Amino acid sequence: MQAVTVKQIFRETETFLNQKLEISGWVRTIRTSKAFGFIEINDGSFFENIQVVFDESLDNFLEIGKQTISSALRVQGTLVPSPGAKQPFELKAEHVEILALAGGDYPLQKKRHSFEYLRTIAHLRPRTNTFAAVFRVRSVVAYAIHKFFQEKGFVYVHTPIITGSDAEGAGEMFKVTVLDPANPPRNDAGTVNYGEDFFGKETSLTVSGQLNVETYCMAFRNVYTFGPTFRAENSNTARHAAEFWMIEPEIAFAELADNMKLAEEMMKYIIRYALDNAPEEMAFFNKFVDKTLFERLENILNSDFGHITYTEAVKLLEKVNTEFEYPVHWGIDLQTEHERYLTEKIFKKPVFVSDYPKDIKAFYMRLNDDNKTVAAMDLLVPGVGEIIGGSQREERLEVLENRMKEFGLKEEDYYWYLDLRRYGGVKHAGYGLGFERVIMYLSGMSNIRDVISFPRTANMCEF
Amino acid sequence: MQAVTVKQIFRETETFLNQKLEISGWVRTIRTSKAFGFIEINDGSFFENIQVVFDESLDNFLEIGKQTISSALRVQGTLVPSPGAKQPFELKAEHVEILALAGGDYPLQKKRHSFEYLRTIAHLRPRTNTFAAVFRVRSVVAYAIHKFFQEKGFVYVHTPIITGSDAEGAGEMFKVTVLDPANPPRNDAGTVNYGEDFFGKETSLTVSGQLNVETYCMAFRNVYTFGPTFRAENSNTARHAAEFWMIEPEIAFAELADNMKLAEEMMKYIIRYALDNAPEEMAFFNKFVDKTLFERLENILNSDFGHITYTEAVKLLEKVNTEFEYPVHWGIDLQTEHERYLTEKIFKKPVFVSDYPKDIKAFYMRLNDDNKTVAAMDLLVPGVGEIIGGSQREERLEVLENRMKEFGLKEEDYYWYLDLRRYGGVKHAGYGLGFERVIMYLSGMSNIRDVISFPRTANMCEF
Repeated sequence: MQAVTVKQIFRETETFLNQKLEISGWVRTIRTSKAFGFIEINDGSFFENIQVVFDESLDNFLEIGKQTISSALRVQGTLVPSPGAKQPFELKAEHVEILALAGGDYPLQKKRHSFEYLRTIAHLRPRTNTFAAVFRVRSVVAYAIHKFFQEKGFVYVHTPIITGSDAEGAGEMFKVTVLDPANPPRNDAGTVNYGEDFFGKETSLTVSGQLNVETYCMAFRNVYTFGPTFRAENSNTARHAAEFWMIEPEIAFAELADNMKLAEEMMKYIIRYALDNAPEEMAFFNKFVDKTLFERLENILNSDFGHITYTEAVKLLEKVNTEFEYPVHWGIDLQTEHERYLTEKIFKKPVFVSDYPKDIKAFYMRLNDDNKTVAAMDLLVPGVGEIIGGSQREERLEVLENRMKEFGLKEEDYYWYLDLRRYGGVKHAGYGLGFERVIMYLSGMSNIRDVISFPRTANMCEF
Repeated sequence: MQAVTVKQIFRETETFLNQKLEISGWVRTIRTSKAFGFIEINDGSFFENIQVVFDESLDNFLEIGKQTISSALRVQGTLVPSPGAKQPFELKAEHVEILALAGGDYPLQKKRHSFEYLRTIAHLRPRTNTFAAVFRVRSVVAYAIHKFFQEKGFVYVHTPIITGSDAEGAGEMFKVTVLDPANPPRNDAGTVNYGEDFFGKETSLTVSGQLNVETYCMAFRNVYTFGPTFRAENSNTARHAAEFWMIEPEIAFAELADNMKLAEEMMKYIIRYALDNAPEEMAFFNKFVDKTLFERLENILNSDFGHITYTEAVKLLEKVNTEFEYPVHWGIDLQTEHERYLTEKIFKKPVFVSDYPKDIKAFYMRLNDDNKTVAAMDLLVPGVGEIIGGSQREERLEVLENRMKEFGLKEEDYYWYLDLRRYGGVKHAGYGLGFERVIMYLSGMSNIRDVISFPRTANMCEF
């Protein structure tokens, strides 16, 4: 008898109808009467359950009826048509083997649980519909990102997680050490002697792979990272986690316009890929999590993204300053309220804002000829605001050195980054995409803790 | 004029021959005479260079001739046949724009450099043939691994990097903290008060995602991780790094035999994928790094992997104990010399060794009926020894609890892992594959520092 997955049955129903099959999976619901019963089984391969019917002709009919939610069964039977039912087929059991009886105290009984509660049982929550959908989509989208870049010939680079430099000063960093903080080795002056630490120096967890990946960009032309990054920021919001994954493409012989073109193409590709490759999950989100989801995503797929400079955007926003908690004027960093107004009210579609004031952006962004702005860009999307941030990089050695001085950065800490400008440093650009933000956007889930398998936030590092 | 990559020209030569094209890239070699010159250009898209010919008809003929290695150029010209040359075509330049002149002190002049030296310029070494090949193959193989598992419906899980538990006790761990070790907060007793640390407790970098991913296996059936893992071990060998990437698949409704079948299929898939998708790079390795490479890989592709139990293997090895530095007897952990003898001399092909003594294996491995061995397996390959380690997991609650007692592990630290056995815990199995080991095996590179972009080892955390 052929062992199959529930996904195979749903996707190739014609092949398996009226065939004898074997499935293995977990009970999601069970109902019995005197002479027969129904079990909905999920085998993890597919979002939907398959209905199994069994009756008293089975030796262990009574025992089957005692199975609880999450018990595991192996069922042999015939896939028969089931006209008029929710699904057009069901599995008529001829033999049911009980693999594992779940304890009656199983926490996921058939009722709605709050997302807050489910976070406390993060080891079990992927067994619920919502989290099964979230984490399959997360997997599908991760693959879509690799597929998009690999098919374009981009080289995937694993930039280091442990770093000896503080990169772009992008945020508070976690220290990595093997020293005993109760009694660290000390120098004569009484300060901690990091010379005795594992790496012989102070080290931290990375906040960005960008500077590292630029070195590979100057060798392979088009490259990307996709790995974990960290922020030791005590911000207890629904959008921040201490550990999250980031995608950072970097392209050579390229300017800001190429960068924006790539970002737009990528966003459309992964949305389309998720809709095509996780249709049941996406339909679930649209029905139960965010009823505007499909509309929102279709809007992205069918729009040419807008373009506006920061300076133009500020002019437009200043006219409606009464709408905002924080009034806008040239020079400020745009707040989420401003970003959302631009994309939702003015453009009504995704929009790139480019050429920000140099003083509110990072040292490595390319200085524009006006000497006041840099070739930076943010992608704003309706419902969220910023989802991508990027820039053309400063490839001119002297300009970069001046910018580093303005930022108080020491050249010796960045000698290798400067070397890229000494030896064939061409125009290049790149951006960063927070992976969890994308999953939130694609699912409608509103808390980052609900799109990370085991989230790490301030005072929370369970499992 | 159409801007193309060197890869396009090589892969679609017919399309581009006799066409006007534009390429951008970096000088690898340049030779000039009075009236004409040759430049080999690499644009990062492809392993091979393209030859550009230019002559005195160009306005800036003299300036072009002054370009140095790694200078960047944009060349417009016609792709013309070049009969009898190394490559059947060359680009006849009609216009050459100089994008960036590389300093004459560029460290990668045209001569052989030792791998040791190149490690000191890890930001530039991907511009050499060897490292261009290594890191493109690394990218291609990373993608092959995702493709293999995704096409089988496996769900990719990002297990946490920062962990509050010491997992399987698999090795020394790095501490992650925001406390100031010079002056940490203390409890009344004088010990460090981790309650004030970022997560409110002691945390470390993960050594394995396995225990976490098992929770997702019990929801999605077939899952895998692919992420960085860490060991704070001061082992200064060519095969160990403090930071490396690992792949850990986990399959449900599966036993040890299924696990070995999956591992064999995966190994063959990724070897085939690398040979098919990075043919130039693989040929380079076979020619310059390890002349037995193709033979070795073909041997894997064409073999049914061998199978032997640990007990049988020990019997065979005891007969040749005089060959070994460490003699073999039942109960010892096999050394690399024993593993290599098994796979190279006895089997002459990859071999799975299974059912190891329980005392030398981890607590979560499934106890066999003999009560002496566990359902563990290692895959040994010629030239290396162990490349994969895995096991069927103990799904029986009481047996697992007993094993944890024997190992001195506290149940409360693993309540969520034990929950998996309480609520529908079915037979399942998985393995771990060190990604860098695979790249070493596929390339013939013998030092792990040479397959990691910016390696982290004891006293080494540069760039």
